[in-house]
Amino acid sequence: NLMLGSQRKMPEFSSFVARTNTCGELRPSHLGQEVTLCGWIQYRRQNIFLVLRDCHGLVQVVIPQDESAASVKKVLCEAPLESVVRISGTVISRPPGQENPKMPTGAIEIKVKTAELLNSCRKLPFEIKDFVKKTEALRLQYRYLDLRSAQMQHNLRLRSQMVMRMREYLCNLHGFVDVETPTLFKRTPGGAKEFLVPSREPGKFYSLPQSPQQFKQLLMIGGLDRYFQVARCYRDEGSRPDRQPEFTQIDIEMSFVDQTGIQSLTEGLLQYAWPGDRDPVVTPFPSMPFAEALATYGTDKPDTRFGMKITDISDVFRNTKSEFLQDSLSKPQGTVKAICVREGAKYLKRKDIKSIRKCATDHFNQEVLPVFLKANSNWNAPVAKFIEEEHGLELTRMMELQEDDVLLLTAGEHAKACSLLGKLRLECADLLEGRGVVLRDPTQFSFLWVVDFPLFFPKEDNPKELESAHHPFTAPHPSDGHLIYTEPEKVRSQHYDLVLNGHEIGGGSIRIHDAELQRYILSTVLKEDVTLLSHLLQALDYGAPPHGGIALGLDRLMCLVTGAPSIRDVIAFPKSFRGRDLMSSAPDSVPPEELKPYHIQVSWPTDSE
Amino acid sequence: NLMLGSQRKMPEFSSFVARTNTCGELRPSHLGQEVTLCGWIQYRRQNIFLVLRDCHGLVQVVIPQDESAASVKKVLCEAPLESVVRISGTVISRPPGQENPKMPTGAIEIKVKTAELLNSCRKLPFEIKDFVKKTEALRLQYRYLDLRSAQMQHNLRLRSQMVMRMREYLCNLHGFVDVETPTLFKRTPGGAKEFLVPSREPGKFYSLPQSPQQFKQLLMIGGLDRYFQVARCYRDEGSRPDRQPEFTQIDIEMSFVDQTGIQSLTEGLLQYAWPGDRDPVVTPFPSMPFAEALATYGTDKPDTRFGMKITDISDVFRNTKSEFLQDSLSKPQGTVKAICVREGAKYLKRKDIKSIRKCATDHFNQEVLPVFLKANSNWNAPVAKFIEEEHGLELTRMMELQEDDVLLLTAGEHAKACSLLGKLRLECADLLEGRGVVLRDPTQFSFLWVVDFPLFFPKEDNPKELESAHHPFTAPHPSDGHLIYTEPEKVRSQHYDLVLNGHEIGGGSIRIHDAELQRYILSTVLKEDVTLLSHLLQALDYGAPPHGGIALGLDRLMCLVTGAPSIRDVIAFPKSFRGRDLMSSAPDSVPPEELKPYHIQVSWPTDSE
Repeated sequence: NLMLGSQRKMPEFSSFVARTNTCGELRPSHLGQEVTLCGWIQYRRQNIFLVLRDCHGLVQVVIPQDESAASVKKVLCEAPLESVVRISGTVISRPPGQENPKMPTGAIEIKVKTAELLNSCRKLPFEIKDFVKKTEALRLQYRYLDLRSAQMQHNLRLRSQMVMRMREYLCNLHGFVDVETPTLFKRTPGGAKEFLVPSREPGKFYSLPQSPQQFKQLLMIGGLDRYFQVARCYRDEGSRPDRQPEFTQIDIEMSFVDQTGIQSLTEGLLQYAWPGDRDPVVTPFPSMPFAEALATYGTDKPDTRFGMKITDISDVFRNTKSEFLQDSLSKPQGTVKAICVREGAKYLKRKDIKSIRKCATDHFNQEVLPVFLKANSNWNAPVAKFIEEEHGLELTRMMELQEDDVLLLTAGEHAKACSLLGKLRLECADLLEGRGVVLRDPTQFSFLWVVDFPLFFPKEDNPKELESAHHPFTAPHPSDGHLIYTEPEKVRSQHYDLVLNGHEIGGGSIRIHDAELQRYILSTVLKEDVTLLSHLLQALDYGAPPHGGIALGLDRLMCLVTGAPSIRDVIAFPKSFRGRDLMSSAPDSVPPEELKPYHIQVSWPTDSE
Repeated sequence: NLMLGSQRKMPEFSSFVARTNTCGELRPSHLGQEVTLCGWIQYRRQNIFLVLRDCHGLVQVVIPQDESAASVKKVLCEAPLESVVRISGTVISRPPGQENPKMPTGAIEIKVKTAELLNSCRKLPFEIKDFVKKTEALRLQYRYLDLRSAQMQHNLRLRSQMVMRMREYLCNLHGFVDVETPTLFKRTPGGAKEFLVPSREPGKFYSLPQSPQQFKQLLMIGGLDRYFQVARCYRDEGSRPDRQPEFTQIDIEMSFVDQTGIQSLTEGLLQYAWPGDRDPVVTPFPSMPFAEALATYGTDKPDTRFGMKITDISDVFRNTKSEFLQDSLSKPQGTVKAICVREGAKYLKRKDIKSIRKCATDHFNQEVLPVFLKANSNWNAPVAKFIEEEHGLELTRMMELQEDDVLLLTAGEHAKACSLLGKLRLECADLLEGRGVVLRDPTQFSFLWVVDFPLFFPKEDNPKELESAHHPFTAPHPSDGHLIYTEPEKVRSQHYDLVLNGHEIGGGSIRIHDAELQRYILSTVLKEDVTLLSHLLQALDYGAPPHGGIALGLDRLMCLVTGAPSIRDVIAFPKSFRGRDLMSSAPDSVPPEELKPYHIQVSWPTDSE
């Protein structure tokens, strides 16, 4: 069923064209009707039956065998598979016993009267059948053939329908204005990931912005009140798997709104747009402060479909004799933490433990070493010597350990220990699911707001300087505003992330509407070049309303809704992970004379580079 | 009224935010209600009244004068105009005699209880009042202030609503799939107007395509059946007035469709999306072959709101003694043609005639010289000597000339004579309208299909070679298909343009779905480099369905619907005619180190260039 809401009228799929019906829609209620169908020859059996396919499904066509229909038979039997034909005929019942209950049109077939070959098909590089496995490179090279698969058809149609529902919610129910903003813009401070577009003015370049952030704020200052856009965004990250150089976000901004308002709007939006054949979205979504997400799940985007939470067990070891644990606890922010893999001993094999250890050492400093315990009477683990008996008992009680549970324990600085265990938690989930345990039900959708992020983080390469945790326009938390001038590193923000099943699908914030505060943060705290933003700072001076918004990552959202393995499966013409279009082989060389109007030339790398 | 269809429910404009109502919506039905409003201080009178503005209109607020409300009075009286405030109070009737019937909220006012200054406004560069004239440069520099004007608010909201209606028609009523196609693509043959985007691969560039033409065809080959997209397109034309480097088109493609199908779809689309407060769109639209449009209106985009058609009067002069006319008629395609300006002698002054003459000589060869006649008994014109008496009488009869009509006559090659008179027809319309004659009613919308274009035109710089009249994927007219291989210059195409009030607002065609024909046209007729299109040619081999489509220019359409003087008035953040964003001053210089990852450097022009 292609409809999202059961109350809606079906669209007319055959208006304006040379067919009366789609292949997929025919049912016993059509019996006796004269129909004209257009489609692709999917399959042919002994020159007697043919299966015709269009975007709505498959239908069986009976090839006429009598002499008078020789020309029709010739057309239908000689055309190669995947050729395009138009047929006319009558919808008839299949003979008793020959119905196919697995096929939506399986009760009927078409008795053909006329057939016309519209286009013949050459030998294909692969068969258009969902069960035929193709490499992704081949699929991308022949994307137009790959799009014929039932899965890609479903993904693209569902995407279109969900976006349409979002538009109805925003535009028709809540009075939002769909405003298109430019993509040829000025570079933003720190916008090293922005594609450049040379202009005809020597040395002058447009930038393709990473989001309409500045424009959406300027629209609020312009009194548009409620803006949204299904916005094309650009980010040049070089080669990164599962990222696209261009991507789409549902971009929203409102005036006179607070964090709760944006959150309610977003919840209502997803609830309204959610496909009707899934469990309805339950609102409001739970909310969790960033600090708690990090402490409990080791990440700012926890998958809350399953437990295996991180527990701080430092108190158990306050008086331990183990030098290793003592040492860790005595350092600043030193902790001992653990997660419990319930019944892990049943499922995790020796090589799994090895891979968990490897994951820990690969991604984290040595100081954060995992310790494995099997929680039976014997504390069966090489590192059990660290655990004195009384501590072992207390641990068992505290974490409600049962026979066959496995404990992953680590000691170290709070954030690092959490991150490690957060990573190992997902690693364990993968391993357990590989052994048949269902931890993360793919039909379950667990939404979560993560809130109260820090406004700034220390820069990785120079921890004495601060950088924006999200972007420099984020407003400080109202309770922390006074700390901006004294201890900016302690200020929480009014940023919120929306997390679904462990993936960030959106983020937004209440913005700074005070020009002086914005100037102070940009120049004094962040030490940015404010001239690049002078237009925005000036705009804040001229009666900027309080405002805030959110952006939802449409590609990721659709990926989760459809259960697709990659965002490339919910995009019609994606780029490969190196940013290439394998079908047309873009990007491509350009003759030097075409570079001339843009006053640029190629700097070919030398061998030494 | 913000709604397009009267049957639709009004959106909730105040959900999720810190107000109960919008300023513009309050009416006597709200009397006695406690309301909270947010908005800008538009105007203040003697510290007694204040007019508050939001995106939905204006409302009068009574500033309390009693001692107990001193703080409220202070907030409302001290805030500069255009400051942002939130007020709470009661909706009350205006005292009898003080109602303002010109103001939608003019029967009521707000008795304020609380007031809060949300943001103060500095001195503005211009007043936010529609009657205050600003230069366009100033408006673009402070676009966020210009957007507060009632006109820009109306234009952007109507645009959003019309696009939403189009989406409903396409998606919900007719089963179209909204598919997003890439903008980082490969350059197309002859794509000299495509912006380039350097990639991280040395010497390799993406192109920003002028339209999703290739992708929409590939989607049909991919079985998507019915595609649409509100597509961002890019065209680098350097400096051209009333063009934008990025623009938006409603992009549509269907499989198994013919020209009539696309035309009916488009007519239904415009009819459905048309604003409810205008005269309804009448369908079907009239249709006119290209040759007739040229012969009758001298252009392929005739404004059919008025007559003043071109008449071929060659036959009148077959036996003329005038050497000038004889000479013109004896040349290949030689003609004598005229338009009649009814009652022109009443309105056109000597200087108008001069400017018409100047227009003719400025734009056309000398051989095409206009001749002016006043059609009274005396043929009052310096060139009347060309016209023998019998010819004068015949002309009078043929063109139904009345006293005071003015005839513009020219002799020359058919197409040139038509073009000249077509241009003079519009020039005369401008002149007459300058004198108060209404020829082109701005509330009238005359749609016209122009069809049967030639498939190829001779190249301007080398008339022996052919180029596509539109694009190389256009299918030949079914009656002319055989001429492709013999006399390609005579082949008509299945291209159609949609014209509204003399402006082209859309164009489309049935496409070539036969790989061999497409190859032949590209390589043999057009002599293009087919390697740049090898993916498309290959795709046509693999069961491409017959297909066709159309693209509507949204910016131009909205410009005509709103009656805006420029497309910049229907775009939130337009570029100046030199392609600059005057607000942020994009395009901008980029430090050389940011060019490095893209392996390009600037070639600074030398003085001699």
